[in-house]
Amino acid sequence: MTYKLVSRDYNPDDLVVDVGGVEVGGRRVVVIAGPCSVESLEQTLEIAKLVKRLGAHMLRGGAFKPRTSPYSFQGLGEEGLKILVKAREETGLPIVTEVMDPRDIPLFKKYDVDVFQVGARNMQNYTLLKELGRVDKPVLLKRGFSATIDEWLGAAEYVALGGNRKIILCERGIRTFETHTRFTLSISTIPLVKKLSYLPVIADPSHATGRRDLVIPVARASIAAGADGVLVEVHLNPEKALSDGPQSLTIRDFEELVRDLKRVAEALGRYL
Amino acid sequence: MTYKLVSRDYNPDDLVVDVGGVEVGGRRVVVIAGPCSVESLEQTLEIAKLVKRLGAHMLRGGAFKPRTSPYSFQGLGEEGLKILVKAREETGLPIVTEVMDPRDIPLFKKYDVDVFQVGARNMQNYTLLKELGRVDKPVLLKRGFSATIDEWLGAAEYVALGGNRKIILCERGIRTFETHTRFTLSISTIPLVKKLSYLPVIADPSHATGRRDLVIPVARASIAAGADGVLVEVHLNPEKALSDGPQSLTIRDFEELVRDLKRVAEALGRYL
Amino acid sequence: MTYKLVSRDYNPDDLVVDVGGVEVGGRRVVVIAGPCSVESLEQTLEIAKLVKRLGAHMLRGGAFKPRTSPYSFQGLGEEGLKILVKAREETGLPIVTEVMDPRDIPLFKKYDVDVFQVGARNMQNYTLLKELGRVDKPVLLKRGFSATIDEWLGAAEYVALGGNRKIILCERGIRTFETHTRFTLSISTIPLVKKLSYLPVIADPSHATGRRDLVIPVARASIAAGADGVLVEVHLNPEKALSDGPQSLTIRDFEELVRDLKRVAEALGRYL
Amino acid sequence: MTYKLVSRDYNPDDLVVDVGGVEVGGRRVVVIAGPCSVESLEQTLEIAKLVKRLGAHMLRGGAFKPRTSPYSFQGLGEEGLKILVKAREETGLPIVTEVMDPRDIPLFKKYDVDVFQVGARNMQNYTLLKELGRVDKPVLLKRGFSATIDEWLGAAEYVALGGNRKIILCERGIRTFETHTRFTLSISTIPLVKKLSYLPVIADPSHATGRRDLVIPVARASIAAGADGVLVEVHLNPEKALSDGPQSLTIRDFEELVRDLKRVAEALGRYL
Repeated sequence: MTYKLVSRDYNPDDLVVDVGGVEVGGRRVVVIAGPCSVESLEQTLEIAKLVKRLGAHMLRGGAFKPRTSPYSFQGLGEEGLKILVKAREETGLPIVTEVMDPRDIPLFKKYDVDVFQVGARNMQNYTLLKELGRVDKPVLLKRGFSATIDEWLGAAEYVALGGNRKIILCERGIRTFETHTRFTLSISTIPLVKKLSYLPVIADPSHATGRRDLVIPVARASIAAGADGVLVEVHLNPEKALSDGPQSLTIRDFEELVRDLKRVAEALGRYL
Repeated sequence: MTYKLVSRDYNPDDLVVDVGGVEVGGRRVVVIAGPCSVESLEQTLEIAKLVKRLGAHMLRGGAFKPRTSPYSFQGLGEEGLKILVKAREETGLPIVTEVMDPRDIPLFKKYDVDVFQVGARNMQNYTLLKELGRVDKPVLLKRGFSATIDEWLGAAEYVALGGNRKIILCERGIRTFETHTRFTLSISTIPLVKKLSYLPVIADPSHATGRRDLVIPVARASIAAGADGVLVEVHLNPEKALSDGPQSLTIRDFEELVRDLKRVAEALGRYL
Repeated sequence: MTYKLVSRDYNPDDLVVDVGGVEVGGRRVVVIAGPCSVESLEQTLEIAKLVKRLGAHMLRGGAFKPRTSPYSFQGLGEEGLKILVKAREETGLPIVTEVMDPRDIPLFKKYDVDVFQVGARNMQNYTLLKELGRVDKPVLLKRGFSATIDEWLGAAEYVALGGNRKIILCERGIRTFETHTRFTLSISTIPLVKKLSYLPVIADPSHATGRRDLVIPVARASIAAGADGVLVEVHLNPEKALSDGPQSLTIRDFEELVRDLKRVAEALGRYL
Repeated sequence: MTYKLVSRDYNPDDLVVDVGGVEVGGRRVVVIAGPCSVESLEQTLEIAKLVKRLGAHMLRGGAFKPRTSPYSFQGLGEEGLKILVKAREETGLPIVTEVMDPRDIPLFKKYDVDVFQVGARNMQNYTLLKELGRVDKPVLLKRGFSATIDEWLGAAEYVALGGNRKIILCERGIRTFETHTRFTLSISTIPLVKKLSYLPVIADPSHATGRRDLVIPVARASIAAGADGVLVEVHLNPEKALSDGPQSLTIRDFEELVRDLKRVAEALGRYL
């Protein structure tokens, strides 16, 4: 047995995770938006205010960045957390950011980060998962890009077993032979994982596709497949982003995304 | 260069393929339904009438079946075509069925098959593709389950180069490491291929998932991603189907599918 | 059940296929070499003589070529078969060439082709397989690049069921997420398929890797894993090849290949 | 740029890593053997003595185990390290064991672990990699099971950039659609990575295949492809192993493995 506590057998009712007043896993479809990396106070504040005004429910932004190359921008670290806190104060948006090292958990607590994100590369960092099990904050658990469903739910189980049941799953694409896109969002995984588990599931079409022009249709599809929300990258000037520019939406794209998701959600008896 | 005639550069306007009065690629979202295999006249007629009444636009059904094992049911052959013709007479639904061998093309013409389907296993059967290029009937070209986008559009080019531009693409799932589903429907492929090509694209959630309980959400997602229709397997009694029972919808499921697709289509400015 | 006649349960002894006096599947390790495409009489004769002198047991060369793009060189067709026959006359090497269309079988018989090759793209062209079951010549069955072992042995079963048991399997790489190589040769498939089936198995490191500099080590590895031979592409002037230049060995490379394979074969109680 | 320090451009000569007197990356082919998990002192000592006598150069064994399920055996932890130390004392074999958490590095130093192994699941745990860059011990870096070559060498670069150049790469299979084996050992990766990098590369046929009956042929193939050694699991009684029983060699299998590898190595101008 790989998982038990996170299975639907264990709890037939959908779990609703409360994030600073925003409910994930209920009838509402949530939109989490923000820059890939927190680059500066100005950038983050401006994006936060714009996405808030257009309908986002939470702000995402990386302070600690896992990068394939040690020569790439590694994030602002604690400085990035401070900027996110400032953006939360100004907009009221709860903040979602990635924790890579268990030793950073106290820092995340100090800044009262609202959602502790576990990245795809750390989905099987069991040490990290175990310690997040003892944290009283929601954990956003991204699927490893070649993790099976069982491995993913097994990872969630590590968190749950520590006592923390506030887990939000996030499908972000798997690695396949396709080269036109960065990864392949596995759309059937969304309804499947909702059958196997009672946890909420959101989708990350930005990382899955790696292409701005595919983010909106894939986001719409995710909601149509039953996802409880989406996590998207937005940048004021994607060409100048320090990371993930090609997949970041502009503000205008984001406006279109929200409009489309609202329509799809309402068609299926949900709302944004 | 792998393809030219089927590219959007060649023709910026969406191609609309007329199938016996049903337009594929326009504002309408089409639903093609029917049994995996044509098993008998009674079975086919009954399914055809039911799906017609519930909103299907075309009837699918295999007369010639490519099977992994030579010991599996290989289809009724010409007898199956005759049954499909009967079902068309009674319901008015155009018929879609797979051609595996170029030497069967005259037979398909004799029975005036409305759409010549090329299965995933034959997507790179270039001999077949070339001869379909000289047929004056729409070709439904399924993506090979490990074909890249370029290989798929290259296959379409073989048909187009022969003079037949009435091509409908069909995403039916690619092979990945996932084992909970038969294949993985690549949702981003739908908007992507519509950018690269001007051909209509439909999705086959039945083969992609291999599981009845995932067909409806994946079909909804496909339409939300921009697909021009879906191809689904429906059976009166899936447990007794001679092929693909586990992935066939019941009539009740089909009713739910049509209702859901109608809602998603309308939310996005299309109709069923 | 997908296969029976080709299983080791059916016949516990290794099958040895005789190809014009060359035994495949016995203690000898066979080397099949030649150009990707038959381009001209001069080219083919010259390569044939050189590889013969250096130790090749059979000559390969494509007359009918399945190409992803209809704009690529499609092969010389019947003219190519005539050239192969000439090369056989001059060198005594049996000839191996691909048949793509069942209607070409009589032509292949007319020129007494020694081994009928089924390419990866046609591995599930069941019409072709069935008709090769009625041919009295060895069939070299390449694995489809995303075929499972069961699908591959199921394809062999189609041939065997027609009465033709002279089947040689060929592992030629599967499609994975790797981009440095064209495909990924699945080395464990070689011993695995020899456990499941009693058929001989060879490897095609040229198509698997798509890179000249990897062909020799992968060929050595294939023999070390238990393969009964290798199929490699050799060209006098790879940069000028009409197809597959980057993966073709030069004559000098081929000499090194033969020397290495001889050593590995002898270390494991076989010979070249 | 993903990597520089570990590239062959940076250092054209093969790196030879000294592990307690055993050279990895030179003409010798090394064999690292032992149980998947350290289960008890008796078990470990007995296996260590047997593999030593049969020719192993190092002892492997897991004290800290990354497991997909939190309900699986998680390893003996520090107790396991003590047992490995005892086995080293009795046999003289250097010990190789996995470190999962940077906070365990001092413990590994205390017991003077000879090779710090980074498991596939932690290949992109950049925190861990950075800290191993400051350790003065060889690091055995397994490839993530869906890591590209660039990601893998990028991970090595994280270690090298910290100042630790004693890195040994280990190909342990990638995730593909194959289900007969646990993973697919990518044989071409071995020569490829030796072209791109000057680091030694070994293969782990036990994890790659997950099947005892395939370990020996795949190990032979790895050496034939140019690997500098193999890492294999050996158990006295595989059916009773606390982890990875089905892929563990018996002592008799191990004897056969060593004999075969010796022959292949010598055929190619190396020795065991």
